[in-house]
Amino acid sequence: MGGYVYFFAQNKASGSAKMRNLLGGKGANLAEMANLGIRVPPGFTISTEVCNYYTEHHNYPEDLETEIRENLNKVEEATGKRFGDIQNPLLVSVRSGARVSMPGMMDTVLDLGLSDITVEGLVEETENPRLAYDAYRRLVQMFGNVVLGIEGEKFEELIEEKKKSKDAKEDIDLAWQDLKGLVDEFKELIEKEKGIQFPQDPFKQLNMAIDAVFASWNNKRAVNYRKINKIPEHWGTAVNVQVMVFGNMGNDSGTGVGFTRNPATGKKEIYGEYLLNAQGEDVVAGIRTPHPFSKLKEEMPQVYQELVEVVQRLEDHYKDVQDFEFTIEKGKLYLLQTRTGKRTTQAAAKIACDMVEERLIDKKEALMRVEPGQLKQLLHRGIDPEAELEVFARGLPASPGAATGAIVFTADRAVELAQDGRKVILVRKETSPEDIHGMAAAEGILTARGGMTSHAAIVSRGMGKCCIAGCEALKVDEKKKRFEVDGLVFKEGDFITLDGSAGRVIKGEVPTLEPELSSEFKKLMRWADEIRTLGVRANADTPEDAKKARELGAEGIGLCRTEHMFFGEERLPYVQKMILAEDEEVRKEALEKLEPMQREDFKGILREMEGLPVIIRLLDPPLHEFLPHYESLLLEVNKLKLEKTEDKEKIQEKEKILQRIVDLREVNPMLGHRGCRLGITFPEVYNMQVRAVFEAAAELILEDVKVYPEIMIPLVANEKELSFLRKQVIEVAGEIMREKGVEFEYKVGTMIELPRAAFCADKIAQEADFFSFGTNDLTQTTFGFSRDDAEAKFIPAYIEKKILEDDPFEVLDQEGVGQLLKMGIERGRKTNKDLEVGICGEHGGEPSSVKFCYQIGMDYVSCSPYRVPIARLAAAQAILEDRKAISDKFFKE
Amino acid sequence: MGGYVYFFAQNKASGSAKMRNLLGGKGANLAEMANLGIRVPPGFTISTEVCNYYTEHHNYPEDLETEIRENLNKVEEATGKRFGDIQNPLLVSVRSGARVSMPGMMDTVLDLGLSDITVEGLVEETENPRLAYDAYRRLVQMFGNVVLGIEGEKFEELIEEKKKSKDAKEDIDLAWQDLKGLVDEFKELIEKEKGIQFPQDPFKQLNMAIDAVFASWNNKRAVNYRKINKIPEHWGTAVNVQVMVFGNMGNDSGTGVGFTRNPATGKKEIYGEYLLNAQGEDVVAGIRTPHPFSKLKEEMPQVYQELVEVVQRLEDHYKDVQDFEFTIEKGKLYLLQTRTGKRTTQAAAKIACDMVEERLIDKKEALMRVEPGQLKQLLHRGIDPEAELEVFARGLPASPGAATGAIVFTADRAVELAQDGRKVILVRKETSPEDIHGMAAAEGILTARGGMTSHAAIVSRGMGKCCIAGCEALKVDEKKKRFEVDGLVFKEGDFITLDGSAGRVIKGEVPTLEPELSSEFKKLMRWADEIRTLGVRANADTPEDAKKARELGAEGIGLCRTEHMFFGEERLPYVQKMILAEDEEVRKEALEKLEPMQREDFKGILREMEGLPVIIRLLDPPLHEFLPHYESLLLEVNKLKLEKTEDKEKIQEKEKILQRIVDLREVNPMLGHRGCRLGITFPEVYNMQVRAVFEAAAELILEDVKVYPEIMIPLVANEKELSFLRKQVIEVAGEIMREKGVEFEYKVGTMIELPRAAFCADKIAQEADFFSFGTNDLTQTTFGFSRDDAEAKFIPAYIEKKILEDDPFEVLDQEGVGQLLKMGIERGRKTNKDLEVGICGEHGGEPSSVKFCYQIGMDYVSCSPYRVPIARLAAAQAILEDRKAISDKFFKE
Repeated sequence: MGGYVYFFAQNKASGSAKMRNLLGGKGANLAEMANLGIRVPPGFTISTEVCNYYTEHHNYPEDLETEIRENLNKVEEATGKRFGDIQNPLLVSVRSGARVSMPGMMDTVLDLGLSDITVEGLVEETENPRLAYDAYRRLVQMFGNVVLGIEGEKFEELIEEKKKSKDAKEDIDLAWQDLKGLVDEFKELIEKEKGIQFPQDPFKQLNMAIDAVFASWNNKRAVNYRKINKIPEHWGTAVNVQVMVFGNMGNDSGTGVGFTRNPATGKKEIYGEYLLNAQGEDVVAGIRTPHPFSKLKEEMPQVYQELVEVVQRLEDHYKDVQDFEFTIEKGKLYLLQTRTGKRTTQAAAKIACDMVEERLIDKKEALMRVEPGQLKQLLHRGIDPEAELEVFARGLPASPGAATGAIVFTADRAVELAQDGRKVILVRKETSPEDIHGMAAAEGILTARGGMTSHAAIVSRGMGKCCIAGCEALKVDEKKKRFEVDGLVFKEGDFITLDGSAGRVIKGEVPTLEPELSSEFKKLMRWADEIRTLGVRANADTPEDAKKARELGAEGIGLCRTEHMFFGEERLPYVQKMILAEDEEVRKEALEKLEPMQREDFKGILREMEGLPVIIRLLDPPLHEFLPHYESLLLEVNKLKLEKTEDKEKIQEKEKILQRIVDLREVNPMLGHRGCRLGITFPEVYNMQVRAVFEAAAELILEDVKVYPEIMIPLVANEKELSFLRKQVIEVAGEIMREKGVEFEYKVGTMIELPRAAFCADKIAQEADFFSFGTNDLTQTTFGFSRDDAEAKFIPAYIEKKILEDDPFEVLDQEGVGQLLKMGIERGRKTNKDLEVGICGEHGGEPSSVKFCYQIGMDYVSCSPYRVPIARLAAAQAILEDRKAISDKFFKE
Repeated sequence: MGGYVYFFAQNKASGSAKMRNLLGGKGANLAEMANLGIRVPPGFTISTEVCNYYTEHHNYPEDLETEIRENLNKVEEATGKRFGDIQNPLLVSVRSGARVSMPGMMDTVLDLGLSDITVEGLVEETENPRLAYDAYRRLVQMFGNVVLGIEGEKFEELIEEKKKSKDAKEDIDLAWQDLKGLVDEFKELIEKEKGIQFPQDPFKQLNMAIDAVFASWNNKRAVNYRKINKIPEHWGTAVNVQVMVFGNMGNDSGTGVGFTRNPATGKKEIYGEYLLNAQGEDVVAGIRTPHPFSKLKEEMPQVYQELVEVVQRLEDHYKDVQDFEFTIEKGKLYLLQTRTGKRTTQAAAKIACDMVEERLIDKKEALMRVEPGQLKQLLHRGIDPEAELEVFARGLPASPGAATGAIVFTADRAVELAQDGRKVILVRKETSPEDIHGMAAAEGILTARGGMTSHAAIVSRGMGKCCIAGCEALKVDEKKKRFEVDGLVFKEGDFITLDGSAGRVIKGEVPTLEPELSSEFKKLMRWADEIRTLGVRANADTPEDAKKARELGAEGIGLCRTEHMFFGEERLPYVQKMILAEDEEVRKEALEKLEPMQREDFKGILREMEGLPVIIRLLDPPLHEFLPHYESLLLEVNKLKLEKTEDKEKIQEKEKILQRIVDLREVNPMLGHRGCRLGITFPEVYNMQVRAVFEAAAELILEDVKVYPEIMIPLVANEKELSFLRKQVIEVAGEIMREKGVEFEYKVGTMIELPRAAFCADKIAQEADFFSFGTNDLTQTTFGFSRDDAEAKFIPAYIEKKILEDDPFEVLDQEGVGQLLKMGIERGRKTNKDLEVGICGEHGGEPSSVKFCYQIGMDYVSCSPYRVPIARLAAAQAILEDRKAISDKFFKE
């Protein structure tokens, strides 16, 4: 059959960039550069098919040997050198090159073609015995190590001994005679270790090296890397055999790496470093400090000019920033590699916008160039990337951002110090509703326990406050006001810094940076908005959050959680009074106190979102969340009793609260008495909330503010729950319209967050103006995973064992949960074609999930304010990836 | 149009029993009896259509009046009396009669047709002024109350006054003159209350009475009754207008009720009671004690003979036991009513079998005649139904049966007394694994907390032991060895009796009865087995349960829970050691101790089930369930600390355990680290269990016992979990076959108990030999209901508010959970056509759920041993109700 080997040389290549799967990234790009007329060291690529053949048969296709010989002939023609020639020997390298870069995972052999005889030819040709013997020394060393499997250390030892005996500090201080000696010693080592001679036949060298490189696809290192990075085994690697060029042939030679634009800032400037009289490894090894390109312009103006032109041609051709490598051999520039350059998010945004200006790409392409998930880097205060950090612990990145402050261990102390104008970090084993005022006062929150939906995590995200939760290494002693991590002790007042985006806990104060939204960021967002059809709303519980969300482009509030308002310092006592109430009277009294406060909350949010819809979810969590911590109280009561306190009344009162907590405690609170179940069994609470919402709406309308409140009923499993509660909402709305003498629009809808709700969506939709999929809870019930428990106890092991690809609480499980969403939407719209459908789980701000929401026909996604831009971009990309939509609807330009 | 009114008289009726929907139950049966030539008081039925018309239009169809007149004429013809005639007045009653009986819910008026004039005619005709004036008195009273809406009490007061003034003890002591006086006083009362005269025109009386009876369909009482009993409003009621017959015309008159067979035992004998010279109300009111039919045979042999013949004809005609009412007027027998007789389960079984013998019905019909759910009455020890009971509290009927014994409050004490041969009831706030030995020793278990799946409930059911859980009225003080209920105090040693089937807690010792399986029961079961295609297996964890299950007809074990074996007294310490182990070595040691014990367990069960499949589920609950109770330990440690005990080591040790419990505790254990998640993260536990199963199997095969072990992996959400664990099972099986030198068959399958598993059933089925739907957990996740919390906190309110029809943990939710089952089966069989599918949740023994399982194509159901007969019968009924299957496959006779 044949066709396994692809030749390349300037203007003559049989491959191209499109053949990446067959030639690997390196091979495909070498072919592409060659075809662009760019000077590359000639060579050929043995395709990935051969790798697969080899993996399967432990042998090569019949014609391969012949093909290699033929291509080697072409290389000889192109260079005028001959492989194994005594006068003018051709030297080649053998390198792996998979479809995607797997840096350092597979093997490389350089300088193949040298032997005791040809090395002399090289000396003659280059007039540089040191270069020739250094190359020979490298060949024997790499061959012994990579091809024959002798430990690298044994070669290094011989080099060290040689250096010691010659009093040489660096390799460079060795003379060519020393290197020649080393070659002999290496050959002896090979014979001793493997009982064979270093092959003097260049063809034998080449075959063995190709063999070794193909085999390295299946070495342990590479196999593990593929597992971690989800690279399929059947992709295989290609092998590139390429003429050696030498950057170390004197001061008219050199080597370097660069980017066509600044990868940190995105600025349009060729950017990189080089070294004269050096090989590629020298730039990487960092023994000599490389110089910036500005110096190359001075030292070798012509070469520099050629380089600028060549890489510009590459960027124009690939229409993206290129990360390139080059070597200068005796004043002649060779490009060795080019690939898409990695860049920061900030740079990505700038480059995308600039390239649109430069007409290199269009807006659609620009939108595809920025990874939505990385946008968050631009939106939170962040640790200064230049700072040196002493990270002493890691926890869950529960709420992004960065915060620095003095450690405190109680909420009261946090408030105290904050009032004195000090910045504090609240450190707790875990937080409870009673810590709210302290959390509000602190810059950031750090807890030893709890997952991504722990109290600390949820409240912090609600507050837009940096939080690291579940930092299990922390041994917190709240009484002694200290914590310990691996023997390190921190006391109240000590400074620490939290990196909430990465979960890093850092010693001392670290400079943080306020994000500045670049004009490019804003431009991209504008383009995204032009293209996307999926709405983007925000989850926000306070006027401040609502404001931030609107700034970041939210088109409404998709989820306003009313319970967080209950945790407020001046409210919690009334909430507790309401819960502990033994008669209707006392409960009513407490609710009457709470109502005006809630009304003001809603007025604030509705006002901020003037003209946009605001979905307000009625009370969701079980009541015991608002009561004091059970175990602390239990211990306290027990202590009082053991101490035989005189104050019997105090004990009695505490015991009463304790009893009420016991009554309310649940085995599985997640599946317990919460959501609409509370609304049905304690109607007065929901009625108070609905009243507060509609009074707020009525009052604002009288002030001429346009408001669109929407009431959302949580945790519905059954259409009758919704119809029962919907009736009450409609009744209260009517009452308030009459009382206030004003009409207002409103909707009543429900969360779809239980599997049964998705199944019965056709019936539920008849009672609902809208559905909002609560994918946090839906993931919990569909998988039977309690997030708090699962993320701490077994999800990491599941991901490690490849049972799960991702944490389903972060990335929507399209296969399971996603089917419920699809079913819910289809069935819901079947009976209510005007049904508005959105998502308000955390997946609403995760790019792949947002795209899925678009695909299954949702009207909008809703996410935390800082994820709004992510969702906007992902929504735009979703439609761009949906080719049919593109051709049918949008881009007729 | 017309056709609203249907006449009936002996041998002349225009309706029939088939017209129940139109004529109501009473009307249809009167027509049917008339057509059978049975003497009934002539009359006519106004159809339910009129009721609906009336409800809709608040008026009657045009032709109704005419039709009534025409039919009244026919009645006059049949009786030779005339309505309103002065000489020979026709008297009629007006009664409601809906499709199903709604006893006492709607209104009745008797003796219509009497007036100041016609009453004199009646006196003349009957020569009985007392009878006549008593009838007139009743008419005016009922008319005033029912038709005109005057409170009944006001009439009763007048009667009381009259009795007082006449020194009469009972109504019967009043003379006809007194009754005549009362008629006048009643008429005055009507005029005073309503400002109208009691109508003297019989037609006016009749029309107003019909009006009132139709209107009573929508009275509050009736509406509520319909709601509770799920009777649709649109069924409406019919109205029966019928000639009055009088059982109080002297000693040649009388009235009675009876059954064609004994409703308690099923014995074939006419069975009933009567009173001479009495009206129907007198039998019901219980003022005079009625006589058995044997006396009627003596007193009125001819009438008795006629009655026997008539009701025999009715039974033969209806082919079922009849519950009938009759009146004898001057020696003439009239049948007033007949309907299907209610009976005990025992009677139902006997009657069904007897009727097959008598060739009245066939086997299929016989199987339909017994309500499967009621079979459990036959299977558990029960409270003697004759006993007088002092029920002082009620809880959840967690495990059926009855038990009597002395109260104890600790497991140790239970064992102590039981060893002395005493019967005890263990009373606890709630039980924990540490109470197992006490539970085993006790006759029954009573707890103040916990639901139908609480530890106490599950373990009790597993042990086949009577248990009442969640008896919230109980204030248990375990230290003081007493409990209190509403002021009543019970101490250790006091006797109580538990009725686990009804949740009743009874004071003192109550006789209980051992069930004896009747030959009829066994015959019915045999017939059921001949017909059904759905397999029936049992959930059993011990050899004893397995044996019982086999006796009751189980065809295998569908679920053997291995964790209950871990709770055994001598095992728990090793289980705890395994969990607390800090290194591999200690854990292995503990597992090695446990393995032989588990092996013996499995040998016992496999041996009992020789020749049948036994599905063994690997460890399912979270590990913390096996550790001591957290809060008790917390308090203990705290106390030790406060007491400043010298014994530091003790504190440290306890603290270590406490810490481990804290580590293992979960927010929502139901959704936590359990099931296959444990198997994946702690493979050594599952491996030990699998090894024990297969070693048991191998050893039994060597003893020539045929065994079919099947390993079931719980809580799979993802096919990869199953493939991961399946591999391990196969490996262990191979090892043991080699070690023991024997081959054995086995299967590996999984529970489908999470919504995601149902969705991904196609993938999971590729790794599974069988699916077993765990509908307990599936109901929890599909609804988002934690059973323990929901059944105590809101399901009762939901049922009361009609949001749920049934507790979904008792009756399978076909609309939600059922869809997941269907989907799981369809998808699973799509990729694995040999997949065996069953259910092992508690629904497997609930009749409507069993039928659903048949309909969706399951291979078998599995339930607790005592529910096996229920499932067998329900499975037979399922196929009988599936008409297509009947005509296509089975009954070609």
